[in-house]
Amino acid sequence: MDIMSYLSGYVDGEGSFCVSFSPSKRHLLGWEVRPSFSVSQNYNRAEVLNLLKEYFDYGTIRPDRSDNTLKYEIRSITVLIEKVIPHFEEYPLLSNKQKDFEIFAEICKKIYRKEHLTSKGFAEIVKLAFYMNPSGIRKYSQDFILKSIKLR
Amino acid sequence: MDIMSYLSGYVDGEGSFCVSFSPSKRHLLGWEVRPSFSVSQNYNRAEVLNLLKEYFDYGTIRPDRSDNTLKYEIRSITVLIEKVIPHFEEYPLLSNKQKDFEIFAEICKKIYRKEHLTSKGFAEIVKLAFYMNPSGIRKYSQDFILKSIKLR
Repeated sequence: MDIMSYLSGYVDGEGSFCVSFSPSKRHLLGWEVRPSFSVSQNYNRAEVLNLLKEYFDYGTIRPDRSDNTLKYEIRSITVLIEKVIPHFEEYPLLSNKQKDFEIFAEICKKIYRKEHLTSKGFAEIVKLAFYMNPSGIRKYSQDFILKSIKLR
Repeated sequence: MDIMSYLSGYVDGEGSFCVSFSPSKRHLLGWEVRPSFSVSQNYNRAEVLNLLKEYFDYGTIRPDRSDNTLKYEIRSITVLIEKVIPHFEEYPLLSNKQKDFEIFAEICKKIYRKEHLTSKGFAEIVKLAFYMNPSGIRKYSQDFILKSIKLR
């Protein structure tokens, strides 16, 4: 048994790579961008979430009230760049969720290089993110975000 | 990447091992027992189901109208015994779904040895099956099935 391959298989089914945007007065461009890697599971089957947390040596496991599940999540850009992305580059997803991962990785690398701090870089990130499969309903449209980025 | 470990990880998230019972006039004891291994996935992400079908070289992939998913399923007791069970014995599930698998394997082995054809053997299978996590609502209670087995 190869645990790294196993975890990738598990994440292929239960995991998601998301990039969300929210208006923020604290941010110079008026928007905050937040990448997140998460894996959900029923309350009574947390074993593999614990295993993921042990493997990545980071992240939180919290109840998700919306659907009675537990959610393991990593939001730290440093951990995403140093641990999560290298794992899935070495043990890639075999479904088309891999496409989402690749865009996610590209966005994280841009953020790590601080490209999201310029309006041009931020707009590129927004456009990339909207190529991903939405794992939930997006509150703001691409157009709305792009038009309301404060020039800098 | 080790594809066998990957598939076990995927099945840990998305798969299920079920044993269902239905009344049947064609069966001597008045009941039919049906073990099934299945894996469900969204319509737009069938890749790993195709991979499982290729790997086990058996099974069907069908739309599941109840929840707009695709379902890969193996019901053949021979294939369950010769291919599916040996796979998960070598690459076990790391969550408590493994407990369900172990009971499932025990039941399949009993059926393969024709133990379900005697009322004693059938009753043992019913009792074992009710130790498994129900993946759906059971139509008949354990008591009802046990009391209505035709003596043989």
